[in-house]
Amino acid sequence: MATDTPTPSYQELAAQKRERQLDLIPLEWRLEPVPSVDSAPNALVYIRQILSPTELALTEETDITVLLRKLSSGELSSLELTQAFAKRAALAHQLTTCCTEIFFDEAFAAAKQMDEHLANTGKTMGPLHGLPVSIKDLFSVKGVDTSIGWVGLTNNPAQNDKSVARTLRRLGAVLYVKTNLPQSMMMSDSYNHVWGQCVNPFNRNLISGGSSGGEGSIVAARGSPLGIGTDLGGSIRIPAGLCGLYGLSPSPGRHPYERGNPGQDIIRSVAGPMSVSLATIERYMEAVPYASPWELDQHVAPVPWRRSLASLRPKRLKIGFLVDDGVVKCQPPAERSVRDVIEALKAAGHEVFEWDASSHAYAYELWEKAILSDGGEGCRRMIEMTGEPLIEGMLVGKEHNILTTSETHQLNAAKYKYETSYLERWISSGIDALIMPNTPWVGYKPWTWVKSNNYVGYTSIWNLVGYAALTVPVTTVSRDKDLPSQDWLDHVPRNPGDKFNKEQYDIDLVDGMPVGVQVVGGRFGEEKCVAVAKAIEQAMRWKDLARPSL
Amino acid sequence: MATDTPTPSYQELAAQKRERQLDLIPLEWRLEPVPSVDSAPNALVYIRQILSPTELALTEETDITVLLRKLSSGELSSLELTQAFAKRAALAHQLTTCCTEIFFDEAFAAAKQMDEHLANTGKTMGPLHGLPVSIKDLFSVKGVDTSIGWVGLTNNPAQNDKSVARTLRRLGAVLYVKTNLPQSMMMSDSYNHVWGQCVNPFNRNLISGGSSGGEGSIVAARGSPLGIGTDLGGSIRIPAGLCGLYGLSPSPGRHPYERGNPGQDIIRSVAGPMSVSLATIERYMEAVPYASPWELDQHVAPVPWRRSLASLRPKRLKIGFLVDDGVVKCQPPAERSVRDVIEALKAAGHEVFEWDASSHAYAYELWEKAILSDGGEGCRRMIEMTGEPLIEGMLVGKEHNILTTSETHQLNAAKYKYETSYLERWISSGIDALIMPNTPWVGYKPWTWVKSNNYVGYTSIWNLVGYAALTVPVTTVSRDKDLPSQDWLDHVPRNPGDKFNKEQYDIDLVDGMPVGVQVVGGRFGEEKCVAVAKAIEQAMRWKDLARPSL
Repeated sequence: MATDTPTPSYQELAAQKRERQLDLIPLEWRLEPVPSVDSAPNALVYIRQILSPTELALTEETDITVLLRKLSSGELSSLELTQAFAKRAALAHQLTTCCTEIFFDEAFAAAKQMDEHLANTGKTMGPLHGLPVSIKDLFSVKGVDTSIGWVGLTNNPAQNDKSVARTLRRLGAVLYVKTNLPQSMMMSDSYNHVWGQCVNPFNRNLISGGSSGGEGSIVAARGSPLGIGTDLGGSIRIPAGLCGLYGLSPSPGRHPYERGNPGQDIIRSVAGPMSVSLATIERYMEAVPYASPWELDQHVAPVPWRRSLASLRPKRLKIGFLVDDGVVKCQPPAERSVRDVIEALKAAGHEVFEWDASSHAYAYELWEKAILSDGGEGCRRMIEMTGEPLIEGMLVGKEHNILTTSETHQLNAAKYKYETSYLERWISSGIDALIMPNTPWVGYKPWTWVKSNNYVGYTSIWNLVGYAALTVPVTTVSRDKDLPSQDWLDHVPRNPGDKFNKEQYDIDLVDGMPVGVQVVGGRFGEEKCVAVAKAIEQAMRWKDLARPSL
Repeated sequence: MATDTPTPSYQELAAQKRERQLDLIPLEWRLEPVPSVDSAPNALVYIRQILSPTELALTEETDITVLLRKLSSGELSSLELTQAFAKRAALAHQLTTCCTEIFFDEAFAAAKQMDEHLANTGKTMGPLHGLPVSIKDLFSVKGVDTSIGWVGLTNNPAQNDKSVARTLRRLGAVLYVKTNLPQSMMMSDSYNHVWGQCVNPFNRNLISGGSSGGEGSIVAARGSPLGIGTDLGGSIRIPAGLCGLYGLSPSPGRHPYERGNPGQDIIRSVAGPMSVSLATIERYMEAVPYASPWELDQHVAPVPWRRSLASLRPKRLKIGFLVDDGVVKCQPPAERSVRDVIEALKAAGHEVFEWDASSHAYAYELWEKAILSDGGEGCRRMIEMTGEPLIEGMLVGKEHNILTTSETHQLNAAKYKYETSYLERWISSGIDALIMPNTPWVGYKPWTWVKSNNYVGYTSIWNLVGYAALTVPVTTVSRDKDLPSQDWLDHVPRNPGDKFNKEQYDIDLVDGMPVGVQVVGGRFGEEKCVAVAKAIEQAMRWKDLARPSL
């Protein structure tokens, strides 16, 4: 009858959703007012002043092996730990907009159940017994939305957990929060109309990257000891690099994933862990097979974690490296980060050699063709639900990018040929891992990336060929070391993306920000990534050198 | 200058190719004349009369574990064994047209090298040291054509071995022959214009199936102890069933494969072993990881052979079964084969239950849409090379089957949804394996299948969802047991394919022919397939019952 009830606008729907989100944060954890960026640019500094000594001690522990030992012995209750991380996540969220769905009450109930089970039986409920774990909004968790940053997908709670949440629960993890991401997931800046702008906890003027930018922020802010993101072109590694984290983008088939709406299947997105600590990445990856994730996701292969491959062998590693892929020249700290690592590895006695990246420009063409191949149809379906506008400048296809089926088949064949010859070269080189820049830039303000021409070729190459790649935090931008060199100043841009990247470098903007490198371990090379990251740690005594001093 | 030199016709090119093939068979192994089908309907009977006692003894051994033991101890030389199988392959070929490329001289040289290596070092060259293995023409072997049944691809020898041949050589296998297949590989009758009609060695009036029909014939004729075929909709299992063999279609990612020309990538073809003996299948699959095939084929996952899963555990198996998928009703022997197995397993104390196949018709729609989605473009490219005609009635797309990219994405999503819910049902049922008919028919004359409406849904369902499926030979057609029942006579055909299948059943045509069932082991369930096949062997004491009495 009430045909004249006006349909709420997308802005109204989003505002309502955010209001409900705020209601889920206990009053005593609310920041009123939220401090301005100018008054509190660094979220960690601010948060550390608010937490109790116990909360601080619990959440500053970044190595889950320590937490898990205490949890499984009963020395630490899951409820206490979950409450501490929930509080810190709530604080981090108010300062960085890192969260989407908040479900603390369900988490506390689950944690309590874990504690009771352990008390009653003496047994843990899995290798991650009682550990709070944050996950990207993309993953469906029973009872909360999977809006993925689209207003039209809000108010539609998932009927069931899907494969990633199911895997985590089988491992004994406690889910308590989902995290922010960009509209369409096709940008390295986590902004959308539902939740707004996610920023970097180390410097709230800057972005935390994307698309797993919410995970980057919450984990860097120590609002979560372990986050699960996804990566189709760098979406785990880019935020990991910007937020000083380890972030692992595994080979397809190594970790469960869940696919959403119809889309291209030429390049397959993957899910993987993000953490401040390498030990956490390793412990998590070692735990995953215990959940038999191949029973939950038909694209997971039953590959065990091969501990021997992940250990530091007494052998001389053969390490390839590259500092420039020939498309976009890296800003000085990004290039230096690789050179620092390579120097340290060389000094430690490992063999290093320059890797030929001359085919990477072609690889990027293949990757981009695949990614854009639906001509933006998937996004159009979403915006039609509420009329929310599409954010300009994302890596989303337009009409002219639509491939015919014949062209798709040609692209499949070109990809197959490329990856076959790449594997041949990889294996015959005897390489243990390749070390290279994570991104050619080191920090942007919000809404800069969408003007950047979107080159993500440093990361997307590994999605194209399906190699495991681990972002390793190795240094911070330093005014002493990273002033533009003559080489940088003389560089004649090769293309608009390169020009943009050169013009954007501003040491004042990014001084002190973390910089990561990528360690690429090859097909199903997750263990190699970990082993080589350990060698880097050892070679650089990185704990003293690399961590942002925050 | 000689612009008036006429381009040879496809028939001339094919005739020349066959002539060169015949030249590669030593004169003393030539059948002159080749006996007519009427005078020698059964190739095995004929061949057994020709071979020497030693040759016969060597080639009648179907369990490669026996041969490998002798080869590795030096009791048997690879050269002698390879010569025996080469001779028998040559004879089988002349009676069944099972071979394409013949390269005995290279094989003998390789075998000699194996023998010398063992004699000099005391060490084998791999787990299949010295064993002759036949492979489908699709796989590239250095120095010989990969024509795949297309005249236009003849006279273009491969520059290098590709991943399957490389894997086999790393294992120590001796390659000596490639085998026949249908034009386009999209029919279950191995006929093409280059090599002609491949037939069944048990009854040369009948086909050996396809598309790995050459492997079916050569292995059944004991011209090869182990053949490697490929399967996109049943191409290993259909010939295995018709030829009384075990044939394993693994999950994608379990065995190397090599892709040829551009084509759809929604359903991925797989390669796998075919053999008279289950022990051979198991030994081969156990050997494959020793070659590190993931270094040779980027789509192989590093999954070891899990011997414990393949062993007969002292547990009660939970076996699903189905005799009718609701689309095409099985001919009496195909239905009986499953009922026989299920009765035997039940009698042996295992739990059996009927599996709901009501979604399989929908699965077939998805599979067929994917397969036809290039509209036949791949075939058109081939026929344009020489003007050879396309064989009518294959499972090859036409103009109206071409999908748009949006439709391809919808199909990917529909497939994903289907396989997700299928896996959920599979796992939650607690099933160990599903036993079902291999094909709804049990034997055709050449050129019948192309008129059959091509329903391959009994096998293609497992390609769609990527489950391991093993064809197990369990019985032979018997006039006593398989006369049309009242149920069969009363059956009202559901569709043209069902009608054709009903009309074609002719006990006089197929009496005595082998019948196999499929044992489906789930995702990466190759070990389960083997374990359950062992249980079937045990339950049926099948050696007495099942083998064609030939």
